[in-house]
Amino acid sequence: MAPEAFGRWATRTEATLERLLPDPAAAPSRLHAAMRHAALGSGKRMRPLLVYATGTALGADQALLDAPAAAVELVHAYSLVHDDLPAMDDDDLRRGRPTVHVAFDEATAILAGDALQTLAFTALAAAPAPAQLRIDWVHALADAAGAAGMCGGQALDIDATGSARGQPAASAPALSTTGKDAAGRQMFGGDALARLERMHALKTGALIRAAVRMGALAATADPAVLARLDGFAAALGLAFQVRDDLLDVEGSSEQLGKTAGKDAAQAKATYPALLGMDGARLRLQQLAVDMDDALAPLGDRAATLAALGRLAVTRTH
Amino acid sequence: MAPEAFGRWATRTEATLERLLPDPAAAPSRLHAAMRHAALGSGKRMRPLLVYATGTALGADQALLDAPAAAVELVHAYSLVHDDLPAMDDDDLRRGRPTVHVAFDEATAILAGDALQTLAFTALAAAPAPAQLRIDWVHALADAAGAAGMCGGQALDIDATGSARGQPAASAPALSTTGKDAAGRQMFGGDALARLERMHALKTGALIRAAVRMGALAATADPAVLARLDGFAAALGLAFQVRDDLLDVEGSSEQLGKTAGKDAAQAKATYPALLGMDGARLRLQQLAVDMDDALAPLGDRAATLAALGRLAVTRTH
Repeated sequence: MAPEAFGRWATRTEATLERLLPDPAAAPSRLHAAMRHAALGSGKRMRPLLVYATGTALGADQALLDAPAAAVELVHAYSLVHDDLPAMDDDDLRRGRPTVHVAFDEATAILAGDALQTLAFTALAAAPAPAQLRIDWVHALADAAGAAGMCGGQALDIDATGSARGQPAASAPALSTTGKDAAGRQMFGGDALARLERMHALKTGALIRAAVRMGALAATADPAVLARLDGFAAALGLAFQVRDDLLDVEGSSEQLGKTAGKDAAQAKATYPALLGMDGARLRLQQLAVDMDDALAPLGDRAATLAALGRLAVTRTH
Repeated sequence: MAPEAFGRWATRTEATLERLLPDPAAAPSRLHAAMRHAALGSGKRMRPLLVYATGTALGADQALLDAPAAAVELVHAYSLVHDDLPAMDDDDLRRGRPTVHVAFDEATAILAGDALQTLAFTALAAAPAPAQLRIDWVHALADAAGAAGMCGGQALDIDATGSARGQPAASAPALSTTGKDAAGRQMFGGDALARLERMHALKTGALIRAAVRMGALAATADPAVLARLDGFAAALGLAFQVRDDLLDVEGSSEQLGKTAGKDAAQAKATYPALLGMDGARLRLQQLAVDMDDALAPLGDRAATLAALGRLAVTRTH
């Protein structure tokens, strides 16, 4: 299922991050160690793989993709550090290891997240690429990470759950297996689903779309191809989230590397809560079809990208 | 003391920030309101003024300076939001108003700071300027804001105070008026002062130097002029901090718009604590001379910059 390129690209990402991250022996060493804890040695590297898969599909040189691949992963890593903080999701476990504020302390976690975000932009600014391409990457990444993207999505998520501290929202739906009530009526209308998808489109989708866009920009893709790839990325972002919600219900913490069953405990709006488990699985299949449709006109060039899309749908952790 | 240009530039900065910041009526409105609370309507705007003063001194068009002026202020504003958090300095009052986590909540303050940092890079990426200049600005700002700059300085500050929560550090010096002990010996050697200045050079100095550098880049200053201006900015950054430490001892909270006497209460290493009040005033005068020396070869062109330097030395809040 996973082309051999995936392992190679993950290794390149790790090497680029290792080169970019500050020396753990130099002062302030606690900050540096926390940044490295957050960014190195774990993670699926899905966003970097999307940069490489998109860029190489369109003919870009692999070396040109190292900087945007690392930059998008640094933004992702920073967001996890901050999302895990006690004032946010209050999570102790991430990628199978203690979260940064647990392994270090809260102040260091806040600072490490801040510095990881900055480092993403340093990486792009210092990349061996034409100035116009570098600034286009900065623009794409900043648009995706900020209030109109990832941060905005996290804020919508907090608004929806009524609190950042895991207290159930007043309107939180109960989990059913079919998404229908005892009388067989659909329990939640399109509004709740539309709100959920809008939140995910920003919270995780924006950065996934930026990864694909940055890879395509490196290959100077034309606007029609960019639009097509963006459709693929948008579907992949949602599919990734549906799968995440399903795994939270089905999986164990050990398998996931993070706390399982948390969504239900917090009575969060999720795909299974809104559509039932069967409905969520159906939505996942629809999104897989959307991905294939978006890539079809690109033909064989898009085979690696298509494989990444399938991974998002079938992954078990 | 303050040239009429300062008020005009502060107004331009406010207008640019107003244009860049997200609509408070649009969702997620709480995040947007928090970002605006942090960035609008208050503050000395020293960093934007430095961008304008440097750029116009060297002949850059004022309109070209709007984006870097706003960007450096956005990074400054984000750093204040995060520094004020309970896990960091735990401050309730900032610029005479409740801090963001007090006016909103802690999760929103973390997110608003994150999004303000991102917005700085969006502002630079979208600026009406040549691609090479925009990417040079991004590079300068990211270098100054990250682990090798502002974030690193904040981490050194936390390391020095032994804790981020305001508990006194084990080695915290007592405040004297002369910096000498009862026997007339200098209480603290050059090491403690060197550590303090290194911390300030990163925590506040790096961003002040970036402001001057971004202004100079807009005017395509030659390397010799850039080096000279950087010397000025480094002295100004330290002078600003010495004055800050003096005001914390001399001033009232009402005058400062933030909690006064906090350094002594936390037994922080400060210029007055290390050098005594007289010694700190002497250091401030030395730095004023350093600033004048750095600007002297630039002649009348640097008059506005010199005035900003004097303001840093004489300000009362």
